[in-house]
Amino acid sequence: MTETPTPAATAGPVLVIGAGLLGASIGLGLRHLGVEVWLRDSSPTAEAVAQDIGAGRSCRAAGEGRVPEPALVVVATPPDVTAQTVVEALRAHPGAVVVDIASVKESVLEEVRAQGADLTRYVGTHPMAGREKSGPVAARGELFTSMPWVVCDSGRSSPAALAAAKNLAVDLGATVTFMDAREHDATVALISHLPQVMSSLLASRLQDTPPHHLSLAGQGLRDTTRIAASDPNLWVQILSANAAPVVASLHGVRQDLDRLIATLEAPRAPGARLDIAQLIAEGNAGQARIPGKHGGAPRAFATLTVLVGDVPGQLARLLTEIGEIGVNLEDLRLEHSPGQPVGLAEVSVLPNRRKELVEALQERGWKVVQ
Amino acid sequence: MTETPTPAATAGPVLVIGAGLLGASIGLGLRHLGVEVWLRDSSPTAEAVAQDIGAGRSCRAAGEGRVPEPALVVVATPPDVTAQTVVEALRAHPGAVVVDIASVKESVLEEVRAQGADLTRYVGTHPMAGREKSGPVAARGELFTSMPWVVCDSGRSSPAALAAAKNLAVDLGATVTFMDAREHDATVALISHLPQVMSSLLASRLQDTPPHHLSLAGQGLRDTTRIAASDPNLWVQILSANAAPVVASLHGVRQDLDRLIATLEAPRAPGARLDIAQLIAEGNAGQARIPGKHGGAPRAFATLTVLVGDVPGQLARLLTEIGEIGVNLEDLRLEHSPGQPVGLAEVSVLPNRRKELVEALQERGWKVVQ
Repeated sequence: MTETPTPAATAGPVLVIGAGLLGASIGLGLRHLGVEVWLRDSSPTAEAVAQDIGAGRSCRAAGEGRVPEPALVVVATPPDVTAQTVVEALRAHPGAVVVDIASVKESVLEEVRAQGADLTRYVGTHPMAGREKSGPVAARGELFTSMPWVVCDSGRSSPAALAAAKNLAVDLGATVTFMDAREHDATVALISHLPQVMSSLLASRLQDTPPHHLSLAGQGLRDTTRIAASDPNLWVQILSANAAPVVASLHGVRQDLDRLIATLEAPRAPGARLDIAQLIAEGNAGQARIPGKHGGAPRAFATLTVLVGDVPGQLARLLTEIGEIGVNLEDLRLEHSPGQPVGLAEVSVLPNRRKELVEALQERGWKVVQ
Repeated sequence: MTETPTPAATAGPVLVIGAGLLGASIGLGLRHLGVEVWLRDSSPTAEAVAQDIGAGRSCRAAGEGRVPEPALVVVATPPDVTAQTVVEALRAHPGAVVVDIASVKESVLEEVRAQGADLTRYVGTHPMAGREKSGPVAARGELFTSMPWVVCDSGRSSPAALAAAKNLAVDLGATVTFMDAREHDATVALISHLPQVMSSLLASRLQDTPPHHLSLAGQGLRDTTRIAASDPNLWVQILSANAAPVVASLHGVRQDLDRLIATLEAPRAPGARLDIAQLIAEGNAGQARIPGKHGGAPRAFATLTVLVGDVPGQLARLLTEIGEIGVNLEDLRLEHSPGQPVGLAEVSVLPNRRKELVEALQERGWKVVQ
C-alpha cells in the first residue's frame, strides 16, 4: 500500500466533543494529517481511551486551563443531545466554526435556531459511515474514506463556516454532497431509516421460528436482515428525531402491504395475479435505480460462480489467478452452505471480460458455472 | 481442485420434464455421474439447448418411440403446471417414481390427491437453490452443491419412492431435510417468501427518488433490496400458490407496522421511545437466531477491516497473504465506495485468530482497522 500524504485543509486546533466511534475516528483521521485535536466526552473513560488510541489530547488530562481556543468544534455526541451541545459550543467559543455530525439534521437546526444561537458559524453535517460496533475502541481514521458526507447550509452559514465543514470531510477522505437539512432528512428517511425499519420488521418475525426451519435460510434472508442487528438505543434517537419523513414512507409501505394482503387473501380472484406481479415489478424498478459501485450509474456486471473448498488459501488462490489472468474483480460474494465445507464464490467482472476469464479459469482446473 | 467420483445412487433412466434452469441443472448433475437422462420441454428450443449443454437427450430429437420407460420422472416445470404434469406422469409411467421440485408443496399435493393419482409413487421436493438468471443456458451441475433440499412425504409415499427422492438430492450434492408439505410451506413463507415481499415493498419506494439522493445509498440499502430484482412471473406463481402462510406472516408485519406508525406520529408521547426500542430489539432477537455458515449455530466471528485499492490483484494479494499467515477466512464482505476507487474488505475469522492476523497483516504493510 502506498501512501500519498496531502497537507490538511482543516486549520486546528479542533475540539471534538463526544469521543465515541465517530468522534474518535474523526480525531484519528485528523491526527494522521498532523492537525491539533482536543477531545472532550461526558465519560472520562471514553475520553481517556480516545486519547490512548491517538485520536487527540484529553481536555481532562491536560487540565481545562491548557485547552487552546478551537478554530473548529466538531460535535459528535448522540443525536438527542446534539443541538444543546452545538448551542453551548457556539456560545463558549465565539471565534469557532461549529459543525455537528448527527444523522438527522432538521430537528437539530430547528433547536439551534430556536435558542437564538449564531447560525452563521454553524453547519450541520452527516458523514454516512458507521460500523456495527460502537465506542472509541472501534474507531479508525479511515472510517470515512470514500464514504458520502452531507453538508447542510443552515440558511445563514457563512462561506467560511461552509468551507471549514467541507474541508473536514475532504481531509478525512469523504465525498461531499451539499443539500439542505430538510432534503437530507427526507433522503436518509428513504435510503437509510426505511431499510432499517423494514429489516427489523422482517427479522422480528423470526423470533419464534424453530431452529430447523431457520437452518434452511439462504442468502436472501441473511442479506435482508443483516442491519436488523443494529443498536436499539441509537435507532430510537434517529427514528424519533426524523419521525415525519419516515412515517410518510411507512404510509406508502402500508398502502402497498394492505393491497398485497387483500390480494393474497383471495389469490384466485380476477386480477390477483396482476396485482402481485405489479408489486414485484415495482420492486424491480426501484431496485434497478440504486447506483452501482463507485457512485456510477447502475451497471450490469457479468457474474460467474466458482466452486471453492472451505480450506485456507483456496479463495485467495482463486483471486490470485484472476489477478494473473489480468481481469479486474468488480465484486465478490460468497454463498454459504449449510452442513458442507464447500462454498461458491460469485465473481463480478465487466461483461466483455467474462468469456476470457471463464476459459482461463477452466484451463487452470476451476469448476466454473456456465 | 481434486475430484472424488462417487457412484450415483439414482437409477436411470431419468426423465426430466421442464428443461429450465433447475431441470437442466439436474440433468447436467446426473449426467456428470453417468446417469441416463432424457429431457422433455414444452419449448422445443429449451429442450434442444438443454441437450446441447449436456443435460441429457432430447425426447423430440430421438423420437418419442425411442425414449425408454423411466425409473424416475423429475417434474421441473413452472409451479402453476406442476400438479397437472405430476398427475400425467404418474399415469403415463406406472412403474416410475415421480418427484416434483416446485417451491410450494401443499397446493401441488392437494391437486395431485384430488385427481386420484397414485400417491405411493409421488414425492414432493424442493431444492432450495436458484440463480437470478433463468433458462437452460444458466444451468450448472453444481447448482445444488451444499444447498438444502427438502423432501416431503405425500403421507402415502412408499419407502422406495422416498429413497429415490433422497438419492436424487444426495447425488446432486444437496443436504436433505424431511418435512411434510404444510410445514415446508409455512417455513418457506417465513424464510423465503416474506423476505422477498419485504424487499419488494422497500425497493418499490425508490421508484421516484432523485438519483442524487440514491447516490448516497450505502450497503444497508443494497443488501436489503438485492432480491427485489427477482422475476415477477415466477413470484406471482409462488406467492399465489402459498398465499395463506404468507398472509399470516404479513398480518404480523402489519400489526408491528401499524404500531410503529402510530408511535412515530406522536414521537414525543410517553412510551414512544420504548416502543421504538422494542421494535428494533425484537429485530435484533430474530436476526440473531439465523444460523451461521455451514448450518451451525449462529457463531460470532471476529471481523477486521482492511483497506484495499480497487486495482486487479489487490484483494487477491490480501487473501493470499491471509492464507500464508495460515488463518482460515470464514467470510468476506466488500464495502463499496461511491465516487472513489478504494474499497474496504471486511474479513471474518475465528475470534482466537484475530489478533495474530491483525499483527501479521500490519507487519506486511496493510492498513487494518483496530
